[in-house]
Amino acid sequence: MEQLFYLSDLFGVAVFAVTGALMAGRKSMDLFGVMVIATVTALGGGTLRDLILDNHPVSWIRNDLYIVVAALASIGTVLWVRMTRPIPETGLLVADAFGLAVFTVIGCEVALQHQVPVSTAVIMGVMTGVAGGVMRDVLCNDIPLIFHKEIYATACLVGALVFIGLRELSTPHWLDTSVAMLTVLLIRLAAIRWHIALPRFHLLNRNE
Amino acid sequence: MEQLFYLSDLFGVAVFAVTGALMAGRKSMDLFGVMVIATVTALGGGTLRDLILDNHPVSWIRNDLYIVVAALASIGTVLWVRMTRPIPETGLLVADAFGLAVFTVIGCEVALQHQVPVSTAVIMGVMTGVAGGVMRDVLCNDIPLIFHKEIYATACLVGALVFIGLRELSTPHWLDTSVAMLTVLLIRLAAIRWHIALPRFHLLNRNE
Amino acid sequence: MEQLFYLSDLFGVAVFAVTGALMAGRKSMDLFGVMVIATVTALGGGTLRDLILDNHPVSWIRNDLYIVVAALASIGTVLWVRMTRPIPETGLLVADAFGLAVFTVIGCEVALQHQVPVSTAVIMGVMTGVAGGVMRDVLCNDIPLIFHKEIYATACLVGALVFIGLRELSTPHWLDTSVAMLTVLLIRLAAIRWHIALPRFHLLNRNE
Repeated sequence: MEQLFYLSDLFGVAVFAVTGALMAGRKSMDLFGVMVIATVTALGGGTLRDLILDNHPVSWIRNDLYIVVAALASIGTVLWVRMTRPIPETGLLVADAFGLAVFTVIGCEVALQHQVPVSTAVIMGVMTGVAGGVMRDVLCNDIPLIFHKEIYATACLVGALVFIGLRELSTPHWLDTSVAMLTVLLIRLAAIRWHIALPRFHLLNRNE
Repeated sequence: MEQLFYLSDLFGVAVFAVTGALMAGRKSMDLFGVMVIATVTALGGGTLRDLILDNHPVSWIRNDLYIVVAALASIGTVLWVRMTRPIPETGLLVADAFGLAVFTVIGCEVALQHQVPVSTAVIMGVMTGVAGGVMRDVLCNDIPLIFHKEIYATACLVGALVFIGLRELSTPHWLDTSVAMLTVLLIRLAAIRWHIALPRFHLLNRNE
Repeated sequence: MEQLFYLSDLFGVAVFAVTGALMAGRKSMDLFGVMVIATVTALGGGTLRDLILDNHPVSWIRNDLYIVVAALASIGTVLWVRMTRPIPETGLLVADAFGLAVFTVIGCEVALQHQVPVSTAVIMGVMTGVAGGVMRDVLCNDIPLIFHKEIYATACLVGALVFIGLRELSTPHWLDTSVAMLTVLLIRLAAIRWHIALPRFHLLNRNE
């Protein structure tokens, strides 16, 4: 189980790195830029969570594998695209949803180990899932996608609530983990399939 | 006194969250985006200060109330604006100036508890007051307002200097706190009233 | 030797602050904005490194001199430019390359003191060198220059590898430091002289 979780985590890192590398490509960055954006997308959310929780050492500081996986994924993306095969969009979205599910559950779990209130644990789950993507968009000089696109963070939010609710009921660990991950995955896939978005808040731009 | 200070702090959080929510509305973000921008505006400055000072746990990690107040303030803003009553601009600016005053003094106070030099305490006061707004503007893809608008951070700077100066003189706590807060408030309100701005540094954009 | 290193560090802070102030001037910021951008450019990389490594207190928290040097450098830049003498571009680029070399070596050194793997030490060296500039560009609402311009971070990367390689061979401290700094300096100056850039990764902007 632990082993499976660790592998899922690395898979999430790889997928997020691919989305970062693709975004960097859309901005015509050079190879260094591609690797930085990919790595920040993959590891930024977990790093921010660890800093705020004072959870040291930050995961990738002592374990090379995270950086290596992110670097290989970004190089792989560039090579793949150079060979003119487009990345299969649907496959990538599904993989990204899976990564999101893993990161959310890990974020909640780490937070709960620090004896924080439930609301903080939920925020840490969402932050672990989405903050890397926010940093990616800020570095690429875009308004973060998740602030105005179809449901994304909301999937994390519901998944985090399910996870923590089940934990309170002391269900077996494999059960709360699986159900919470499935929740994130299903909401996200439904949002992609039917283009479900949250209502938006429009305000006229006044001269200040 | 402690109680009053804590209430002022929560009031500052609420006001800053409102300014964040309004900015998110100007960028047509969805409800999740509104809540994130509001929360980051309200809690970002204090969080950055705590991380740099290694002052753990970060305030809102153990106390739900900060997040709850920020969330309620952002939801309240959306509902209020939906009911087509515009937010009274002047009232908001005054409230924001009050929040700025509270945050500046809190920032200095926390820094002084960590036995840092005076210059660092001043910086921490200013940072607590303005960094949340800077993060808000970066996430909204704007050049931070405080870098080119009427006097804002300078009010914090003078207030922080007054606070620390009085502290050195060992004045009673209620006195240095009140005088420093009044200083920030008055400078900021004067700047709004008469559109006072710092001189700007213009440099032609050369091709690099 | 220690003394020389400390002086080089302060020199790096001053030079980076000047580049920050000039960028702020190109965005017509006010004096407060100029000082913030200058300070973030000069101290941002080292601060981020210290936070991630949990290396407290962050350098400038206990030692006023870093902030003072950054502030004086930014005020000096504004005065210099106001007197209509343009900043000598070439001199600035060379000075910046020197600062980059110092920061890279310091970053690696601090990381190695925390018993991290070699790959992490390399990343910390590069991060110390370039993250301040990335923050400067994000705050100025530009895509970070180092993601799409001539070789910059790559110079840090090679210098960091050289430094750590020599360290493994237990060469004298003055030797590994000097050789690594020279490596960064020469690669960077060559890149400026002959406009050497990394290959870029172009991807058509598809509608998502």
